[in-house]
Amino acid sequence: MTGIAIFGAGRIAKVHAQSVADIGANLVAVYDIVPEAAQTLAAQYGAKAAGSPNEAISHPDVDAVIIAASSDVHVELCLEVVKAGKRVMCEKPLAPSLKEAHACVTQLGDKAGDVFLAFNRRFDHGHARLESGVRSGDIGNLEQLIITSRDPYPPPMDYIPKSGGLFRDMMVHDFDMARWLLAEEPMRLFAQGACVVDPQIGKMGDIDSAVVTMSTPSGKQAVITNSRRATYGYDQRIEAFGSRGMIISDNQPATGVKTFTGAAYAACEPIPEFFMDRYAASYRKEIERFIDCVRSGQNAPVSALDGLHAAYLAEAAMASLKSGQPVELDENCDATWT
Amino acid sequence: MTGIAIFGAGRIAKVHAQSVADIGANLVAVYDIVPEAAQTLAAQYGAKAAGSPNEAISHPDVDAVIIAASSDVHVELCLEVVKAGKRVMCEKPLAPSLKEAHACVTQLGDKAGDVFLAFNRRFDHGHARLESGVRSGDIGNLEQLIITSRDPYPPPMDYIPKSGGLFRDMMVHDFDMARWLLAEEPMRLFAQGACVVDPQIGKMGDIDSAVVTMSTPSGKQAVITNSRRATYGYDQRIEAFGSRGMIISDNQPATGVKTFTGAAYAACEPIPEFFMDRYAASYRKEIERFIDCVRSGQNAPVSALDGLHAAYLAEAAMASLKSGQPVELDENCDATWT
Amino acid sequence: MTGIAIFGAGRIAKVHAQSVADIGANLVAVYDIVPEAAQTLAAQYGAKAAGSPNEAISHPDVDAVIIAASSDVHVELCLEVVKAGKRVMCEKPLAPSLKEAHACVTQLGDKAGDVFLAFNRRFDHGHARLESGVRSGDIGNLEQLIITSRDPYPPPMDYIPKSGGLFRDMMVHDFDMARWLLAEEPMRLFAQGACVVDPQIGKMGDIDSAVVTMSTPSGKQAVITNSRRATYGYDQRIEAFGSRGMIISDNQPATGVKTFTGAAYAACEPIPEFFMDRYAASYRKEIERFIDCVRSGQNAPVSALDGLHAAYLAEAAMASLKSGQPVELDENCDATWT
Amino acid sequence: MTGIAIFGAGRIAKVHAQSVADIGANLVAVYDIVPEAAQTLAAQYGAKAAGSPNEAISHPDVDAVIIAASSDVHVELCLEVVKAGKRVMCEKPLAPSLKEAHACVTQLGDKAGDVFLAFNRRFDHGHARLESGVRSGDIGNLEQLIITSRDPYPPPMDYIPKSGGLFRDMMVHDFDMARWLLAEEPMRLFAQGACVVDPQIGKMGDIDSAVVTMSTPSGKQAVITNSRRATYGYDQRIEAFGSRGMIISDNQPATGVKTFTGAAYAACEPIPEFFMDRYAASYRKEIERFIDCVRSGQNAPVSALDGLHAAYLAEAAMASLKSGQPVELDENCDATWT
Repeated sequence: MTGIAIFGAGRIAKVHAQSVADIGANLVAVYDIVPEAAQTLAAQYGAKAAGSPNEAISHPDVDAVIIAASSDVHVELCLEVVKAGKRVMCEKPLAPSLKEAHACVTQLGDKAGDVFLAFNRRFDHGHARLESGVRSGDIGNLEQLIITSRDPYPPPMDYIPKSGGLFRDMMVHDFDMARWLLAEEPMRLFAQGACVVDPQIGKMGDIDSAVVTMSTPSGKQAVITNSRRATYGYDQRIEAFGSRGMIISDNQPATGVKTFTGAAYAACEPIPEFFMDRYAASYRKEIERFIDCVRSGQNAPVSALDGLHAAYLAEAAMASLKSGQPVELDENCDATWT
Repeated sequence: MTGIAIFGAGRIAKVHAQSVADIGANLVAVYDIVPEAAQTLAAQYGAKAAGSPNEAISHPDVDAVIIAASSDVHVELCLEVVKAGKRVMCEKPLAPSLKEAHACVTQLGDKAGDVFLAFNRRFDHGHARLESGVRSGDIGNLEQLIITSRDPYPPPMDYIPKSGGLFRDMMVHDFDMARWLLAEEPMRLFAQGACVVDPQIGKMGDIDSAVVTMSTPSGKQAVITNSRRATYGYDQRIEAFGSRGMIISDNQPATGVKTFTGAAYAACEPIPEFFMDRYAASYRKEIERFIDCVRSGQNAPVSALDGLHAAYLAEAAMASLKSGQPVELDENCDATWT
Repeated sequence: MTGIAIFGAGRIAKVHAQSVADIGANLVAVYDIVPEAAQTLAAQYGAKAAGSPNEAISHPDVDAVIIAASSDVHVELCLEVVKAGKRVMCEKPLAPSLKEAHACVTQLGDKAGDVFLAFNRRFDHGHARLESGVRSGDIGNLEQLIITSRDPYPPPMDYIPKSGGLFRDMMVHDFDMARWLLAEEPMRLFAQGACVVDPQIGKMGDIDSAVVTMSTPSGKQAVITNSRRATYGYDQRIEAFGSRGMIISDNQPATGVKTFTGAAYAACEPIPEFFMDRYAASYRKEIERFIDCVRSGQNAPVSALDGLHAAYLAEAAMASLKSGQPVELDENCDATWT
Repeated sequence: MTGIAIFGAGRIAKVHAQSVADIGANLVAVYDIVPEAAQTLAAQYGAKAAGSPNEAISHPDVDAVIIAASSDVHVELCLEVVKAGKRVMCEKPLAPSLKEAHACVTQLGDKAGDVFLAFNRRFDHGHARLESGVRSGDIGNLEQLIITSRDPYPPPMDYIPKSGGLFRDMMVHDFDMARWLLAEEPMRLFAQGACVVDPQIGKMGDIDSAVVTMSTPSGKQAVITNSRRATYGYDQRIEAFGSRGMIISDNQPATGVKTFTGAAYAACEPIPEFFMDRYAASYRKEIERFIDCVRSGQNAPVSALDGLHAAYLAEAAMASLKSGQPVELDENCDATWT
């Protein structure tokens, strides 16, 4: 049985621990800077609470490590696991800054493709179905890609300054989505931002609404729309338009129930409230794919390199927003605009 | 230009007059028992108000007559027009009773197929699209047919005693729909009725909710559901289920607008309020088809024989409701149950 | 931790065992007439394989028993568990015949309401949402109930003779649904059947397509439509129509993806193929509710009495189909028609 | 009866003539540079073919003029009608160039708001319903506006050079839509374009795919997506997202028919093929509104000023595409970028 260690014992760590158990892999060890948190989570799955990351990594039953600790230790832990010759899955972001992401990828060298980066949305059934439709030519050549991503409500205000800003914290997922679906690196990006949801967000120097457009060398166009608040739920839609048709991965209400009254005809049930519900299945699927990689020795389907690229696009969006001008993108993720 | 006379000057007569004009046929004469009503309608289209039905029928410019007068004179007028060698379209019902419908068809003899009976729903774009899908084998063999027909609100209470009852007044349209789609005469019918919408209707001896099931010799099954009141609008749906799939002619909201709020996700605009809106296009299409028949000399696509059959099924439903037993149906519309 | 024994080790037993584990209850023992099957399933969850039903029932850690063994032993096992003072959930049908179901309920006496009968569809999120909408008056008074239930394909032909026929095997679920939603015992039933899917089914004396209509004392009307084959997937729909509106629990495609091409506009993804997928969540929810009952000592939300009633309606449908006449129903489930 | 003259006898002139007749206004005169074309159209409605524009304008029965002649004479004819003290509706574009549009508005002076500019989409039932929902606060403050507009197929290749390019020919409608819905002049615009549909279009210096983003002083964001080819039909969608919800004016299939097969679940009927079908009702509504203005003396709901603004945005998009940079917009439509 594949042995797994988890670093971190917070919300997403718990989700991953449950997935590990559901899949029938063996949760061997949990490490957290708060030992009690590690013990509680470990106990729930008959795992041990490790006294240090290294203790967990070097445990003979541990084949692979899932890093769900705080962002600032991602790089360090990643490198340590890889150095120990074991497989690693790392929560996003790969690193707190683009510079550190670059440094990490450089240090990983040819192992960068082995590090599984946790862009879980790629494993969502709907988005994955869209991607396979696009890949298999159901809509001919992809020409326009419209990604809409709106949170139901803003994060706690004290999180905003730590978040890195909307592009790094929220749109980074959409950047990964866009790259994955375009199957081609965008060459140009233009960002627009506004603070219309909550003026407090603006006071802290962030935006809460944004539109980013990108284009690729072959002429593909991508649009990403973000908002920090949508009263009707967690809005997650992708539209792929191509030379032979269109595929939309639309929001799906919780059930197939519709209500017909004088006030509203065929009103659907609400869509999932937020990411933990909306993408629940994707978290499990992600762990399945990771464990598949561990067992088979295959490369990660989404790797540290993708983490670097997504971080780069977020950085480019920051730069474009600041300058008010479009940004030319570099294939090697060099921030030529600074 | 094809010359038309219209008998009657009420709501549906006006609709037909407008269709005649829109299509580019010539409204020559209007007759109504209230001369002023005839004059008003005639004047609007540059037609003459005839002093008698015969004056209209015998007018040399009149090629065909549309009967939209009161039900009790349908048969008489129909026969008169046919006798005069002209074409006729007759509003439903063909006759006030099954017996009179039989007599009419007998008198019409081999002209019965020439008399166009105004079951307008056959000319609705959606239902007609469903029918052509069924006919062309898109769903293989039709096996189950589910017709839902609910009015938005009951008719004025003083109309109920004159209506002939729900089966003759309301479900008769659905009986025609069923026969048209089954393309086979039903051999057995069972009716269920209730008065749950308005107790006054029950006091007058009628029902306001009904379910009728029918079966055909080849094993097809049909269900018709009626209600005299639906708060969400005029509910008109047909489901055709077959060996290779299903086609549904669903209600269509007035526009493609949907509203997404915390209270209702993707709520559609209301559907049309009642038949004059819902089936507006079908009334015009019906006149188009009628005038085509006049011009080409072809048989009516829906004739006095269909009128007889639909009336027969309504009568059978009355009998089944009364006896509480299923009724065996006769291909010649003989009311064997009495 | 609540201790559970499972009788049976087949497909549905496995599903229940997994739910028991997922919920955090303790699977203590498994019994099956094939000892190896019991051992395999037991081993998977650290349970023991019991040598006899009684060994499992009397195990001190067993608080409750789930009966997922073959139908002919349901009654006997049920009674044994109840006699031992423990709680029981029994797969449908309660008994192989109406007579035996009656006998079982009689023997259970005032414990009949404690026996949880596994009509899992009541625990489906969509259907349960519809039920709660109806119950809370969202649509006013329920007046018409339309249940559509079509399997994707017929069972293996050798199962047909053992199945008890379409009404007992397939429509029994819809009868339970109807009773649950009507919240009133139907007083009259009329059944129509046909063999149009596969002539072999007819040769074995069964039907593969059916329409049943029922009415209640207060004037509610119910229609159930069944087919053994639907090419577009497992068709499970409920329409509840009332004085203030309508709720539909519609089929829900696997994802929110839609495809737009010249050939088909906004085509959805397929719906779940069959009951194991479609109702997967309901199986787990059912076990949750059962274990809640065990823990709280509450009555079963769906009990042996419901099992008797559903069996009774199936029997009534058989009688109606045979006689070609409607059947008057008895509140005590007496088969007065025989 | 309101008397109307029409200049032009082409496709859209015919549509307007029919609307004039349908509404019950009086088509008095038709003028076209090809006298036979004017005669044919005039004859159809009992109007006279005028020998010159002035003859039509000065005809005592003519209250208002509809200009549906070629674009290069719009300004001249507009001014002439206004000088004669009569009302005018002018097909888009107001003028062949921004400069000429400016000149026209200057010459019109305070009459500019009287000239009805034929941006017919404002009169589409769905879009108008969305607009009234936005205006009445159904979605709170509008924050993001997403307009998708894709033609089914490119125009004939020989039209491309005459078209003025995608922004002036096609997106100009969407610019008007955006301004109307934003209810605030955009202050910044960024355009992206590509030629991916047909390389011939690129060779002629035009694009066939475009994304334009705009922002307003209050922080509203708008995105317009255009393509010259969509295999699934004429794609016309508007999404208005606000602080309290979202309204979408979606494409609506021709009928409510859906098909369910093993190949496609719930596939809708095709949407209208192109603008003449899709916006048919809007053309009539537009004429109704125009004639209302004529009768009441009210200002035009969409005027020469709107024509100028839309032309200005198209020009700005051209400039942005050329420079690759965003363009700052001026409220007075001054092309500050040149």
